[in-house]
Formats: sequence, C-alpha cells, structure tokens
Amino acid sequence: MNKRVTGPEIERLIQLLAKLPGLGPRSARRAALHLIKKKEQLLTPLQAAIADTLEKVGVCTTCGNIDSTDPCTICGDPRRDQSILCVVEEVGDLWALERASAYSGQYHVLGGTLSAIDGIGPDDLNLPQLIKRASEENITEVLLAMNATVDGQTTAHFITDKLDTMDVKVSRLAHGVPVGGELDYLDEGTLAAAIKARRPF
Amino acid sequence: MNKRVTGPEIERLIQLLAKLPGLGPRSARRAALHLIKKKEQLLTPLQAAIADTLEKVGVCTTCGNIDSTDPCTICGDPRRDQSILCVVEEVGDLWALERASAYSGQYHVLGGTLSAIDGIGPDDLNLPQLIKRASEENITEVLLAMNATVDGQTTAHFITDKLDTMDVKVSRLAHGVPVGGELDYLDEGTLAAAIKARRPF
Repeated sequence: MNKRVTGPEIERLIQLLAKLPGLGPRSARRAALHLIKKKEQLLTPLQAAIADTLEKVGVCTTCGNIDSTDPCTICGDPRRDQSILCVVEEVGDLWALERASAYSGQYHVLGGTLSAIDGIGPDDLNLPQLIKRASEENITEVLLAMNATVDGQTTAHFITDKLDTMDVKVSRLAHGVPVGGELDYLDEGTLAAAIKARRPF
Repeated sequence: MNKRVTGPEIERLIQLLAKLPGLGPRSARRAALHLIKKKEQLLTPLQAAIADTLEKVGVCTTCGNIDSTDPCTICGDPRRDQSILCVVEEVGDLWALERASAYSGQYHVLGGTLSAIDGIGPDDLNLPQLIKRASEENITEVLLAMNATVDGQTTAHFITDKLDTMDVKVSRLAHGVPVGGELDYLDEGTLAAAIKARRPF
C-alpha cells in the first residue's frame, strides 16, 4: 500500500519543525498543518521573519548575546553599569536575567559549561575573552550566574581560580527558596542552603 | 530601565513561533534561540522548506487534503478503491487514518463540524461538495470518520440524513476499547459501547 499521504515539501517542513525543542514528530505535524492552514496570517510572516533573522541577526562580538546589532543592545547601552560583568552559560540565561529587571550591568555569555564527559575544555568556551575583558575593561565585580548544576558550578570554580590574581570581586547568585515555592516540595540541598544563608527578618 | 534585550527581528520570530500549537511564549523563545544557534543546519533549511511549501502546497479541489499536487496523491492514485468515501473533519484526521494503513478508498475533508455555538452551518463546511460527490461519483459506501465528540456526531447524523435518499451505504467507525488500553482507565460510555458491540472470540 502506498504510504505517502502528502507532498515531499510538507514532509520536509514537518521534519524540520520536529527538530525544534518542545516539538516532537506528532506536534510538528500539527504545527505544519496549522501553518499551511494559516498561510497568509502565519506562514508568509514566518518566512519574512526568518529571512530578516538570517540577514540581520548575529552574535555580539563583545559579550556573545544574540542581536541584530553588534555591539548588542545591552553592550551598546551607555546607561548600563560598566563596572560589573555577569557571566552566564547561554543566551537564554541572559534573557531570563534581563526579564527579572534586577541587574543593569554588562554580560558575558560562555556558550556552555566545562564538561569532562563531553570533552569541553576552556578553549571551547568563550573563556579567554572573559579573562581578557575582566583584566582590560574597567571591571570591579564579576557575578557568576551559572546554572546550579554540577557542570555549572565546576565552571564557576574554574573561573574563580582564573580571576584569583586580578583585582576583581567575584560573586555568585544566592541559593535559597524560590519565590512562591513551597518548602514541602523543595530538595534537601536547597533547604540546607536557605537555612545556612538565613537573613534577619 | 530599558527592557529590550534583543533585536526586533528576533522578537517577531518568537511571536510567530508562539502561535504554533504546542509552543507557548517560553518554548517559542527557546525554539527561536535554537534556530538562530543552528543557522546553517536548521534556520536556512526551514526558510527553504517554507518557501517550497508556500509555492507548491495547496488544497486538493476534490477531497480537501493538503498536498503539492491537485488532485492530491490519494485522489490521483488509481490503485485506490474508487467506490468508498471516508468523511473526516480535518486533514490531520485523514493523515492519522492513512498512518493506520487499514483503508485504501477515497477521502473527503469537511474542514470542521457543524456547531450551533460557533455558528457553523452546512454551507460553512465542505458539505455541498460531499453530497455532489456521493451522488455523481461511483460511490457505494460513505464511511463517516468524525471525532466521537458531540459536534462530530451531530455532523455525522446530519450527513446521514442528507444521504438518506441516495443509494449509498452509510457506515461509521467502531466504538470500543482502544488497542493497548486498560479497562480501569476507560470511561463508562466507551465500556458500554464495547460491551454492546461485543464479538465472538
């Protein structure tokens, strides 16, 4: 029996959509059908948005953020604090911190973490550039905002060692109870960290 | 504080991706970052696939399937049974039935169901075309493969009435226990239908 139900163009679109994080083969099929149904409102604008992105968007050569300008919006903003540098693993982390609106310094995107298992060493990351920035620029504090994972914390320790000889303060994000979180659902490590770092009420 | 973290091109891409079923604002952001990271492997091919789809893919004027040929692959296949017509609500249902490889007749896509609440009447669907096909073509059986929902079954009853005067057999999909399903998790309606329609072992 002939198993081909639809054209190769649609199959190709489904295959590509299925590679997006959060979409499996089944949801990619649903997404493709939705796109084709809404050609005018969705598929054509998406094509234009992708063309724009391909043409204009790149990596900021200073910090590693993704933006349509280089230096990026953040690096090019003179109102931001030039003396503090926040180190993150990925661009998504930078965006998450910006959404929190609690930080107005500079950023540095590593592009991953050190990982012995995956064979990722210091030179595979944006690390030499970080050391250079910390030594050359007018930086007084480096805030390590790695994920609280084993690899993230290993990388943070590695950077702390590298910056040890320089005249910069090295800080890290606080551990504790997430705002809105319930104690009963939290792991022991987080609770222990929150008790250790308790503060006057 | 300046809340713009990245360029308007990326924001637009995220907004459009967030309109896909299965992607919310947060997963659309992750998908956009993933796409930009994999420009060569993913974003450029996706642009080409969308261009291809926009250029070549359309609705089959016979059955309502979505394909890059008209008549579609299924309508144009002479090996398929020309005497049985399976009526489905949406193109996704047609594809699902084809994956099951148990049917090799023709299809007819209604494009939805009758719905008093949403104000969808017979003329808003691909219904007149169905009546025409059932009367003109060499059809001996119409298989109603609507969803087992209130709207789906209402539409099935409506079609049955319309086809009443014609010389075609009208059938519907069997109700029963899904293959691999556990009785304890099934609703009473399904179990009652499965008991009623029990068959010799």
